[in-house]
Formats: sequence, C-alpha cells, structure tokens
Amino acid sequence: MKHWDTVAVVGVGLIGGSIGLALRRRGLVRRVVGIGRNETRLRKAAELGAITEATESIAAGVSGANLVVICTPVERIVGDALSAAEAARPDTLITDVGSTKLQIVTTLEDRMRASNERGVFFVGSHPMAGSERSGVEYSQADLFEDRVTIVTPTGMTLPEHGRAITDFWESLGSQVLVRSPEDHDRAVAEVSHLPHLVASALAAAIAPDDRMLAGGGWRDTTRVASGDVELWRQILSDNQRYVLKSLDNFEKVLATFRRALENADQNALVELLTTGKQNRDAVGS
Amino acid sequence: MKHWDTVAVVGVGLIGGSIGLALRRRGLVRRVVGIGRNETRLRKAAELGAITEATESIAAGVSGANLVVICTPVERIVGDALSAAEAARPDTLITDVGSTKLQIVTTLEDRMRASNERGVFFVGSHPMAGSERSGVEYSQADLFEDRVTIVTPTGMTLPEHGRAITDFWESLGSQVLVRSPEDHDRAVAEVSHLPHLVASALAAAIAPDDRMLAGGGWRDTTRVASGDVELWRQILSDNQRYVLKSLDNFEKVLATFRRALENADQNALVELLTTGKQNRDAVGS
Repeated sequence: MKHWDTVAVVGVGLIGGSIGLALRRRGLVRRVVGIGRNETRLRKAAELGAITEATESIAAGVSGANLVVICTPVERIVGDALSAAEAARPDTLITDVGSTKLQIVTTLEDRMRASNERGVFFVGSHPMAGSERSGVEYSQADLFEDRVTIVTPTGMTLPEHGRAITDFWESLGSQVLVRSPEDHDRAVAEVSHLPHLVASALAAAIAPDDRMLAGGGWRDTTRVASGDVELWRQILSDNQRYVLKSLDNFEKVLATFRRALENADQNALVELLTTGKQNRDAVGS
Repeated sequence: MKHWDTVAVVGVGLIGGSIGLALRRRGLVRRVVGIGRNETRLRKAAELGAITEATESIAAGVSGANLVVICTPVERIVGDALSAAEAARPDTLITDVGSTKLQIVTTLEDRMRASNERGVFFVGSHPMAGSERSGVEYSQADLFEDRVTIVTPTGMTLPEHGRAITDFWESLGSQVLVRSPEDHDRAVAEVSHLPHLVASALAAAIAPDDRMLAGGGWRDTTRVASGDVELWRQILSDNQRYVLKSLDNFEKVLATFRRALENADQNALVELLTTGKQNRDAVGS
C-alpha cells in the first residue's frame, strides 16, 4: 500500500476536517496541510487536531504533498483541482469528495493533460458520509467507518492510481465501490439527490400552523431538507440530467399511488406499500 | 381530575401495551384489562406488566371498566367501540387511538345514541406516538411523554367528557391538542399520511442493485416505509379525501422543483430549498 507522508486538504469543512482527524488518529501520515480561505475555520481545524499546518494558498499548500484531497463545494472542485495540479510536484495524486462525478471527472481529464505529463493525476471519489450538518466543528475521526466511498476511475486512469485512491479510503475505514462517473451520478441521483429534493418539497409544502403536529415520521422523512442550501443547489444543478431521470421514475410510482387511492383499489395500495416496505427493510436501519 | 379505577384496553399492540405500562408505572389505576383475540399477545402483555388481567371477550372485559380505549386497527374501531358501548356500564367513557378521526367519530355519534341514553359516551383521540415498529413487545411506558395527542370532541360532546379524555392523555405525559375531527384528518394527512405515501413511493422506486448505495439520507427519508402494510392501507383508504388533497399540494411543489431544475433556474432552486430548510429547522430534530 502506498504510504502518504503528507496529505493536503483543500477546503476544511466537515469532510476535510474528518479526513484530517481520521488520518492523524490512525497515525497514517506525518503532515496534514489544511488549505482554505477562512482563517477562523483553519484555526478551528488546527485546534481539533485535524491539520498540522494551514495556508490560504493552494500552490504553497500542495507543493510538499503526495496526495491532495479537494473538499470544496461542487462548483469549485474543477478550479481548485487545476490550481493544485499546476503547483503539485511529480508523482502527486489528486482526488476529491464531490457528490457528483461525471462533469468534474470529464472536465479534469480534458484540462489536466499538461499536469499528467508531469506525473500529476486525478481520480474522482465520493465518500457517502455527508450529514445535514456542515462545518469543521462537526468533524469526526470515524466519519468514514463502515460508510461507502465510491471511487470513479475511467479508461484513462492508470490502474495503480485507482488502486492507491481505493487504498486511501479503505485506510480511513471506508468500504470502497468502484463505478464509472456516469453510473455514479445515475445511482446517487436515485439514492441521495432525489430523496433530498423530495424531502425538501415535503418540508416546503407544510402549512406553518401544522408544524406543531409534525411527529417522528415527518421529522425522519424531511430530515435532510435541513442541509446546506447552496451545497444542494450546486449538487442538483450539476447532476440535473440524472436527477430529472430519477424524478421521472419517482413521479410514475407516485402517479400509481394516486390512482390506487382515487380508485380505492386496495390490492394496488397493498402492492405499492409492500414493495416500499420490502426495499426499505432490505436496506436496514 | 377524574379517577379511573379500571381501564380496559381493546387491542394489545404497541399502543395498547404502552398505555397499560404507562398507567401502571405511574400508579394511576388499580386494574388494566387487556382485551384481544391473540392469546400469545395477551400473555406477553401480562408478562411485561402492561395488563393485570386478560380476556378475549369485549363484553366481559369492559363490564367493570370506567374507561375503554380502543386500540385496534382503523377499520375495526367502529365495530369494537360499538361492542364495548353495548356492554359497558353507565358512566363509562370510550375513546380510541385511531390515526383517522372523521369517519370513526361521525359513525359512532350516529350509532351510539342508545348507549348515550344509558350514559356511555365516545370521544375520539389520536396519540401521535406511532413507530415503524409494531407489536406489544416494543411497548414503552414513556411512549406518550412529550408527544402530541389530538383529542377530537364535537358539538355533541359534553365538555366534561372532552375534559376527562384530555386529562387521561395528559396523565400519561402527553401534550394534548383539541381539534375537530375534520381538522385532525386534514392536518394528519399533511404531517403523517402524505409523508408515509411519499416515503413508500421513494422506497418502491429504488432499483434493487442500487440499494447497497443507500446512505443515511435515503434511510431517514424512507424510514416510515417499513411500517405495517395493512395498518397503512387502512389509514390511507380511510383518509382518502385529505390524503389526496395533501398529495395535490405536494405535487404542485414538486412540479415547481422540476421546472426550476429543467430551466436551470438557480434562484428558484434556492427559494425552494430555503423554504424547505426553514420549515424543517423550525420543527427541530
């Protein structure tokens, strides 16, 4: 397994902070360089022990790193990865933690050719360990344990680079699945982006006077709607195509439910409720 | 406050068992009579300390009670309440725990006139303390603490009867809200029945191969879909009119989301996500 002496984390929030904490608690690296624009956040990350040094400059921060992890919002990942690639020394790997992959990976494969020639490569990742909370103060060293991380190599990725990034996430306790960027975006639209959109629509639809009646069921079903608005605007926009496909599919099931209810078709209601229960029970609590 | 020497519970599952446990732990009654068709369940309830005696006969079970609580599934409540009303002695109050109220209350007001003349009355209740789990083995003495119970008196209810049923739920630790049966059904369609339908549709829509990618967000959003199929078929069918109205409203919000996404209208997306977040944050975790 590749040894990382120094890991640079660009963007020190919940995920970046948790990567730093996990690396350091597990004694996997000597240095974690935190790179960010917000001094308070960097100071907080240092206090928590998530980073060993801090800088506001990507170029300065990545220059001594073997691995760079881009943890900035989806819309900034390409730009930050390019800045990192230009300043990185040969034999540096770059990955990210973005919730979408197709556009990011395609754009970077196109625009990193000069860096590739210098031995600097990108492999996309997505640790599925988000939370409705954000902010470095919620960082946890065990955030990735027993959670799935999807790694998205392509036909252009050297096998040893895909393997190294897989090893990295496994070393933090994560279970890694390898998918193409397309298949990643299709699947997360279904299991994450659509549920967010639906939860948000449910929460938006409640009359303020009825909020006092919201019990455990409403709270569970809408919990993710508390997530960061700007983060989710970027995710839904970036993955527009697959989110709309998942929405098509969901609306078909919803229309079947509506017809069953309108027609008081008890067999159809039982069938829909049973399919939902079977799928839900198969996933576990 | 009215003192209940003996409470009869018809239907000993999660709710009936929890009522018995709460009454006994709080020392509020001398006897809790469990009435049910399933011997194993009655024995389990007795072992848990939820009931002091058991019978399969509603007539025998309610004959010594001051209060009868009907905890059977929605479609059986009217029949069981009528059986109880016929056998109850004068000055007995009957309530229920059904998730819908309009049809139950209206039917019972119409059909209990003879019992009313003997001094036996019904007031509807709905403790909003369900769970995706069912079964007497999950009973908890604190199930109703800090949870809302809606009590639904009508123009035909004597004020002292409404007060007595309110006192009963408050004595179990619940916060009571008084609503008309219509307003109850409209509001619970919105905060409970629609979320169940939506969660069930989301869970039904997932491709089996993608279930392994379902993370915390999907699990929260679909959790209630694990609920008992037959229970929910009855609830959705009984409250058909208001569930369809809530679904209309939800589909309008969903269509706005779809348009925003199709048009890549970032302002509209932010507005929808923000409304959802504000409503969700207002309710609390």
